[in-house]
Amino acid sequence: MSTLPFSKISEPLNALLVAIGLVTVAALTTPDMAGQSRLILKVLLAGIWAAYVLQLIETLIVHRTKAVRDRVLEIAVDLLAVLVPLAAFLFVGGRDQSLYCAIWLLKPLRGSTFFRLLGRVLSKEARNLLGVTSIFGIVLFGAALAAYLIERDVQPDKFGSIPLAMWWAVVTLSTTGYGDEIPQSFAGRVLAGLVMMSGIGIFALWAGILATGFYEEVRRQDFVRNWQLVAAVPLFQKLGSAALIEIVRALRPRIVPAGSVICRKGDTGDQMFFIVEGRVTVATPQPVELGSGSFFGEMALISGEPRSATVSAVTEVSLLSLYSADFQMLSSSSPEIADVIRKTALERRGGTPKA
Amino acid sequence: MSTLPFSKISEPLNALLVAIGLVTVAALTTPDMAGQSRLILKVLLAGIWAAYVLQLIETLIVHRTKAVRDRVLEIAVDLLAVLVPLAAFLFVGGRDQSLYCAIWLLKPLRGSTFFRLLGRVLSKEARNLLGVTSIFGIVLFGAALAAYLIERDVQPDKFGSIPLAMWWAVVTLSTTGYGDEIPQSFAGRVLAGLVMMSGIGIFALWAGILATGFYEEVRRQDFVRNWQLVAAVPLFQKLGSAALIEIVRALRPRIVPAGSVICRKGDTGDQMFFIVEGRVTVATPQPVELGSGSFFGEMALISGEPRSATVSAVTEVSLLSLYSADFQMLSSSSPEIADVIRKTALERRGGTPKA
Amino acid sequence: MSTLPFSKISEPLNALLVAIGLVTVAALTTPDMAGQSRLILKVLLAGIWAAYVLQLIETLIVHRTKAVRDRVLEIAVDLLAVLVPLAAFLFVGGRDQSLYCAIWLLKPLRGSTFFRLLGRVLSKEARNLLGVTSIFGIVLFGAALAAYLIERDVQPDKFGSIPLAMWWAVVTLSTTGYGDEIPQSFAGRVLAGLVMMSGIGIFALWAGILATGFYEEVRRQDFVRNWQLVAAVPLFQKLGSAALIEIVRALRPRIVPAGSVICRKGDTGDQMFFIVEGRVTVATPQPVELGSGSFFGEMALISGEPRSATVSAVTEVSLLSLYSADFQMLSSSSPEIADVIRKTALERRGGTPKA
Amino acid sequence: MSTLPFSKISEPLNALLVAIGLVTVAALTTPDMAGQSRLILKVLLAGIWAAYVLQLIETLIVHRTKAVRDRVLEIAVDLLAVLVPLAAFLFVGGRDQSLYCAIWLLKPLRGSTFFRLLGRVLSKEARNLLGVTSIFGIVLFGAALAAYLIERDVQPDKFGSIPLAMWWAVVTLSTTGYGDEIPQSFAGRVLAGLVMMSGIGIFALWAGILATGFYEEVRRQDFVRNWQLVAAVPLFQKLGSAALIEIVRALRPRIVPAGSVICRKGDTGDQMFFIVEGRVTVATPQPVELGSGSFFGEMALISGEPRSATVSAVTEVSLLSLYSADFQMLSSSSPEIADVIRKTALERRGGTPKA
Repeated sequence: MSTLPFSKISEPLNALLVAIGLVTVAALTTPDMAGQSRLILKVLLAGIWAAYVLQLIETLIVHRTKAVRDRVLEIAVDLLAVLVPLAAFLFVGGRDQSLYCAIWLLKPLRGSTFFRLLGRVLSKEARNLLGVTSIFGIVLFGAALAAYLIERDVQPDKFGSIPLAMWWAVVTLSTTGYGDEIPQSFAGRVLAGLVMMSGIGIFALWAGILATGFYEEVRRQDFVRNWQLVAAVPLFQKLGSAALIEIVRALRPRIVPAGSVICRKGDTGDQMFFIVEGRVTVATPQPVELGSGSFFGEMALISGEPRSATVSAVTEVSLLSLYSADFQMLSSSSPEIADVIRKTALERRGGTPKA
Repeated sequence: MSTLPFSKISEPLNALLVAIGLVTVAALTTPDMAGQSRLILKVLLAGIWAAYVLQLIETLIVHRTKAVRDRVLEIAVDLLAVLVPLAAFLFVGGRDQSLYCAIWLLKPLRGSTFFRLLGRVLSKEARNLLGVTSIFGIVLFGAALAAYLIERDVQPDKFGSIPLAMWWAVVTLSTTGYGDEIPQSFAGRVLAGLVMMSGIGIFALWAGILATGFYEEVRRQDFVRNWQLVAAVPLFQKLGSAALIEIVRALRPRIVPAGSVICRKGDTGDQMFFIVEGRVTVATPQPVELGSGSFFGEMALISGEPRSATVSAVTEVSLLSLYSADFQMLSSSSPEIADVIRKTALERRGGTPKA
Repeated sequence: MSTLPFSKISEPLNALLVAIGLVTVAALTTPDMAGQSRLILKVLLAGIWAAYVLQLIETLIVHRTKAVRDRVLEIAVDLLAVLVPLAAFLFVGGRDQSLYCAIWLLKPLRGSTFFRLLGRVLSKEARNLLGVTSIFGIVLFGAALAAYLIERDVQPDKFGSIPLAMWWAVVTLSTTGYGDEIPQSFAGRVLAGLVMMSGIGIFALWAGILATGFYEEVRRQDFVRNWQLVAAVPLFQKLGSAALIEIVRALRPRIVPAGSVICRKGDTGDQMFFIVEGRVTVATPQPVELGSGSFFGEMALISGEPRSATVSAVTEVSLLSLYSADFQMLSSSSPEIADVIRKTALERRGGTPKA
Repeated sequence: MSTLPFSKISEPLNALLVAIGLVTVAALTTPDMAGQSRLILKVLLAGIWAAYVLQLIETLIVHRTKAVRDRVLEIAVDLLAVLVPLAAFLFVGGRDQSLYCAIWLLKPLRGSTFFRLLGRVLSKEARNLLGVTSIFGIVLFGAALAAYLIERDVQPDKFGSIPLAMWWAVVTLSTTGYGDEIPQSFAGRVLAGLVMMSGIGIFALWAGILATGFYEEVRRQDFVRNWQLVAAVPLFQKLGSAALIEIVRALRPRIVPAGSVICRKGDTGDQMFFIVEGRVTVATPQPVELGSGSFFGEMALISGEPRSATVSAVTEVSLLSLYSADFQMLSSSSPEIADVIRKTALERRGGTPKA
């Protein structure tokens, strides 16, 4: 099933397809283009459309290991990307036909982890962001009202009504400053200065809220990542979620520079290691390289045996350590952990030699 | 008392009313509008005004469970929203009559939690924000003075006095850049570049201070929310505030993915759980769903009895755990907690079956 | 000595004087002003100058409890504020005479706590801020060079040399956008778009660095404030700094809502309290109110006696608690603390009755 | 080897050379310059080029204690800085010859610690920053498409195709606002307002992500710095990296105000100190000053002997403390630490007298 060639479309390739498609759409709107160039561009669009048909078929067939909500979003995006241009081709004529390919702007939404992160931050901070937006609205209306009162007699064509004045207000409050409407009176200029300063302040509020939201979310994601690292260890898989959480809480991060020895053959092991990022090499007779997501030294938690191999950092490595002391404290308080350990220790006496 | 239909006006409806009102006020200022349209808009304003009269009556009658300061603010806003347009209708004539409805801009201030959060952040950071504002003022005056000295002979109509130059300075320092006043000399352009960079720096200072303020305030609000969760547990309600604070400090946050089992029937319980966000299902004969603000597993703190039901996460759940070890440490140091526990344990032997 | 009436000039009054002075200086530069108005404004400047002479005298005479560096800065600012306008009056003629009063812009530097905070943040982050500034410079030159190459043949009057193009680059990179120089070619517009995005990115870098710096500095200031709270307790004044630091580290913050009882008469005390912000009332026969900087309940650390009075929060109170358990752990490890406690306990048996 | 005079070129001097070089390059592009001035400037460029040749030679000869990647970057930058202008001189004629010296813009990249910090932050946050950039792209295209549809009939010369409209979109979304293209219709102005607000929001996202990245990176650098402080202590040099990490984790930061006594002669020492920043004086018969990177009081960890000298803070000092209790806990759990301590204690009985 997952052998369809198209299933290998990675995120960057997807982004490239979208970019090419949109540039083509944009190019097709230039008025003085030769018919031939126009044809070539339309063929290009058709090619991208065909690729998206393939991608839709694959999305519909392949049962990926994805959450239901993710799959629904993906199918919806893929369907729209195929159907909207098709409908435009069938029912819309003229030069605007190709504009409907702009629906491909939705494509980056599928599969990107960033949009999920952003969604969580925005939904968590929704109340605060809405609050700042309402301040924006209040200041905007207030500024337009004041500018209308101050400038309506001086420049009736530019400040003669609140809607007209609001155009000036939004251009000024966002510090865009086109310069097409400028207050002339002294009071109007003082007002403009205050509006500009408010604009900067509102901007700063937005930035402050988003910075807080991102920091909290990043800390939370670290927890989830550590959970996944721990849950992948066979030794821990029979444990309940409460015990796993305790193990996650006991992990301690460290950064090891490239080239350092992490543990030496023959040393007494007092901790096991999880690799968050980077690679290490295990100096067994056939040296083995382990990458992010791997773990080693887990026998130290069970038996006090010396390390069976030296492990060194190939690149700078970000590790998480689980100390046998922490682990034994956890296991002593929970008979179920102690039980799993005893059984695993017996099983593994002749198991794979690890550091 | 709280059965008045209008008491159900929620925050979003309130925001909608304000928005419609203000758009109507803005529309009424456009010069070339037919008399009939104008009449319809005025009727609309009158309708909103009537709604606000009802809201004022309700605010005055209903004794809500609110702090005194909140109620005073609410009544003041509701009174102004009714009286100012009324006074304008009675004593002000002409086209400016409807402008007084702009007082409704104050409406969002009542009842919004964001404005209270913002108020606390601003008051806590007031000293720093004032400091940055004074830097803004100093740079503004300095820039205007320098521009006046540099450009007064080149462009006397635009930089011929410090007040004139200050208009250029504020437009430049806020990076608005209308483009109506631009230094022509080389020195003036170097000055302008420095002013723009200062503007960006001052902006960044503002953002940095507000980000810090929001982060600190959010951490503080988490404490208050946890307090409310804990204080809602009957077991804890006879404890003093010092004991409650200790319990709040002992809570440990965790995120459980949707579908995971939180605790299993028959396991030995060593912690109770508070739901911050999300829903769980308790697999009793008639399954029960618990939402945010609920708690379960509290018998683990008192008796060492096994869990009486399995609890699983329906959605991703944000939990707070209170460990029996932490709780017993607290209760051993405080005889009053120990006392409450003993009594509750006796009472609840035949109580509601919980996980 | 400190009875001079002028010693009471507070920071806000100082700011007001500066503001009036500078507005007057600005007003004096307007060309068409009647001689009489001009005279009045000059008398106003003279009045402010006289006030500053008084302030200088006071600064020179009064020996305040200030660090040497602070005093030197203060004297320098006060001297310049008096001498520069005097020298201008004596040796400079014409309309520019009053401009020298702009030296008063330095006045806010003396005595403001914010400028000291800002100074620390800037000096700590100096390396990073300089780094971003050098990126600004590199992008600026690169943009000017590219714009010069692209546009020099199209608009020789605006992009005919790198210095000319640099004016466009700084106006664009800071997102000011005067609109006096705009690239016309397609390549030039793509370049302009990239420069604008770089400008936003550099701005964001600045904000990120300053936010980090402020957060770290605020945490550090909390430590210093807690130190001052602890060092003011007579019981602790005989302890060395190492012991005090231990006590500061053991403090635990809490927020108590207005109206709550903090400790009840007759309860067994297990902690003492420091008030960071807000007020509490001690229900002794004559009720006493304590404000920020005060402490109460310190007998709990020494003797296990019940609280001698009920203490309630008048406003929302931000407290720091020192637990007798923490304190005894500290004192047991240090014989000098134990010694001080024993003596103080004996002395205070008949001392002031506190909660 | 490292005695070449040029090896002393520090970072600020390097920055100055680059600045002079680029200003000269810029000046040479001004059209109406006398031949003689032009010659002088060219000689100046040649001088800087000669300096860079020396620097290249030195970089190639001297084996500094640098990581391989740093050295490769340095050599590449130094080579380009010499070869590109040389090639331009040999093969390019005319006025553009000197422009190739702009390659010197790369010079600040070598040796600056900030660029390495920035690189780490950007690579760690790459995914999020790319995400925001793609949002920027999506909003940009969407805005251009909408503006094209709305304004193409009103202003065909300015919004007649999507590429034309995109120029307006980027100028507005970045809040630059040149003012050369302004929507005239009501719908176009509402769109413009939304685009400006989106621009501010995207800007704030960027700032929030970078602030989070910088904060995390700064905390990580603190760990590395503490590691270096600890690894420099002879007592610890025989320990493995796992033991060192434990010691780093046990360090506790403190700030001591200038003039305070840190430890007193004769007191029982319970901790050793590392100086992060600032200076202390050791009151031995010949007083010794210690600066950042130094440590003192390390005998307290081994023997319980009283302090042999009083140590006071000369400036405000940022210290890290290692408690003998923490250290003994570490050493008891690791026989190798205990062993090192016993030997060192025996060796140092007659060693250098320290506090």
